[in-house]
Amino acid sequence: MSQFPADSVGLVTPQRQTFSEPLQLACGRSLANYELVYETYGQLNASRSNAVLICHALSGHHHAAGYHSPDDRKPGWWDVCIGPGKAIDTNRFFVVSLNNLGGCHGSTGPSSINPDTGKAWGAHFPMIVVEDWVNSQARLADHLGIRQWAAVVGGSLGGMQALQWAIAHPDRLRHCVAIATASKLSAQNIAFNEVARQAILSDPDFRDGDYAAHGLVPKHGLGLARMVGHITYLSDDAMGQKFGRELRSDELKYDIKGVEFQVESYLRYQGQEFSQRFDANTYLLMTKALDYYDPARAHGGDLARTLEPVQARCLVMSFSTDWRFPPSRSRELANALIAARKDVSYLEIEADQGHDAFLLPIPRYIQALSSYMNRIEVDA
Amino acid sequence: MSQFPADSVGLVTPQRQTFSEPLQLACGRSLANYELVYETYGQLNASRSNAVLICHALSGHHHAAGYHSPDDRKPGWWDVCIGPGKAIDTNRFFVVSLNNLGGCHGSTGPSSINPDTGKAWGAHFPMIVVEDWVNSQARLADHLGIRQWAAVVGGSLGGMQALQWAIAHPDRLRHCVAIATASKLSAQNIAFNEVARQAILSDPDFRDGDYAAHGLVPKHGLGLARMVGHITYLSDDAMGQKFGRELRSDELKYDIKGVEFQVESYLRYQGQEFSQRFDANTYLLMTKALDYYDPARAHGGDLARTLEPVQARCLVMSFSTDWRFPPSRSRELANALIAARKDVSYLEIEADQGHDAFLLPIPRYIQALSSYMNRIEVDA
Repeated sequence: MSQFPADSVGLVTPQRQTFSEPLQLACGRSLANYELVYETYGQLNASRSNAVLICHALSGHHHAAGYHSPDDRKPGWWDVCIGPGKAIDTNRFFVVSLNNLGGCHGSTGPSSINPDTGKAWGAHFPMIVVEDWVNSQARLADHLGIRQWAAVVGGSLGGMQALQWAIAHPDRLRHCVAIATASKLSAQNIAFNEVARQAILSDPDFRDGDYAAHGLVPKHGLGLARMVGHITYLSDDAMGQKFGRELRSDELKYDIKGVEFQVESYLRYQGQEFSQRFDANTYLLMTKALDYYDPARAHGGDLARTLEPVQARCLVMSFSTDWRFPPSRSRELANALIAARKDVSYLEIEADQGHDAFLLPIPRYIQALSSYMNRIEVDA
Repeated sequence: MSQFPADSVGLVTPQRQTFSEPLQLACGRSLANYELVYETYGQLNASRSNAVLICHALSGHHHAAGYHSPDDRKPGWWDVCIGPGKAIDTNRFFVVSLNNLGGCHGSTGPSSINPDTGKAWGAHFPMIVVEDWVNSQARLADHLGIRQWAAVVGGSLGGMQALQWAIAHPDRLRHCVAIATASKLSAQNIAFNEVARQAILSDPDFRDGDYAAHGLVPKHGLGLARMVGHITYLSDDAMGQKFGRELRSDELKYDIKGVEFQVESYLRYQGQEFSQRFDANTYLLMTKALDYYDPARAHGGDLARTLEPVQARCLVMSFSTDWRFPPSRSRELANALIAARKDVSYLEIEADQGHDAFLLPIPRYIQALSSYMNRIEVDA
């Protein structure tokens, strides 16, 4: 497609796969059958050894690279990293990106029809945790004939999935790339998630999760949740540089209910826009999945012991101004991998952009990821 | 009162003063008359030179020290610092503490009756900013016969008032003590305030600010606002030490809408409790006052030039883990005071407790404040 940049994977078409073997979930319930929506970029080689799995973060989905139509103005969410000649080079790798179970972009989730009731699951959709995602992703790998991933890669909540792959399916990946993540949330992380959830739960349009049946969307609650999240994705400095104390108009309005500063209207817009394109029940589920992840819990909090099964080589990356998943948390993970005598590289990238940095074209970051990925050997 | 600790000011009774000369406000409107509720501790000396003004923060009020009844279990909000022999020694100082205009603890504010309509002001109460507070406090000083404060002292939003006193009424205070504050909020600070305000404004029970007329309280919105605020008052470490990832019950519940971690139920409780004792319109007003304060704005952002009128000796204090008003912001203020050739002491206290530290009995902090206050000369 000549209208797309030369280093783009170009036009892509999402695919859909139904799984009809029941999936046992960590919460004790199971899903009798489910669908996963995914995209692939590049070609699977003859030995099926060049596949890379991309795991998405809180509000992500399967559309990681390329365009869905010639008119698309925006490419997939990680297009800066995925494409021919890019850090995750589709000339070498067969890249798989899916929408996780419980999502709201096509895979089975709270907006899907519950076959037992004929109505949307809503808040009755079972709780899905990182371990469940990895198990469902393993089935997708089976379906695609991929015995072993060349790498599993993810940032933030996606990094937790990459880590869980290395712990739970050690022989099914050769490399684990965990970016801007942690092996568990801190109390402050959980607290911010709880504010976001309370905003949704207390929106009268939430209707106990059955808003869809009432033709409603808890847009105020979801918007607020996004506003809180958004602040925590940016660094104090990044917000200062982007907005400072710039006013919306020349004169102060002194209106107790009004918007005075640019940063306020930016946040309001972010919240409104998000509430129109994301599902509230999925937001609850994804934030809970973040809270729950803590693989060392089963080992009395001993992370090094938890990591003993890991066989993959690991790359752990963090960003200097990320205060949601600060470098100290990544170092904690890297140190535990070292203590468990694993093969790990740790890199802290100087970047102003806070947690958001993992999605941005920061040269040193892209270069480092690129170097690592290029050293992964794959058959032609 | 033998039932109170020996270093307590004991039983105190709030006083009330009506001011009937109109107060011109920064927003362009004026208040024809207003009441201020205040408390005093200690004795004003013959030369009326030993008075100390305490300025309160966002959710504070006039009851800074002592007890309102023999049954009171909790003393005033800054009892750790105010009392006989304490850092702000009521054996030496005559301490004045008021509820600011626009407050919800007795001074004229949004819950008061608008004489023009016979109904509560609600969101129609005029916007009050730091400059207005200081002007109204100056009238209280006039009423009490205090020409010059020995010191004006405040933390957080209270510190902004102390600073504004030094700028706007340079000859009316000998010392300015500004703790855990800044000369203006950062974009991130404003963003958190905006989330809090949006939570209140989008609560259907807010009724455009006229909830009282409908017999309603926007308790969900106000509770959410407090939850956000509360997270930002604590450090990540403090939350980690206090709660970690401690569960509420032994077993994970995997409930998408439920509470799983102690930190969640703590926050929910904080929000609920606050929403029962604080007024939503006052919360909007106080957060806006924080946002607006920026005395250097009138001087093209040149803080040193803004501080030129200052005559008071200044003590600026910050706390190492305060990320709402980090030490860097206090240093900014201290450096500008130095650049303006003012007499300033700056002290950064190592403390784990985040912004909340300014209210807590941290030995080095109390000792430093005590030393400074004890060096202030007052007539017997």
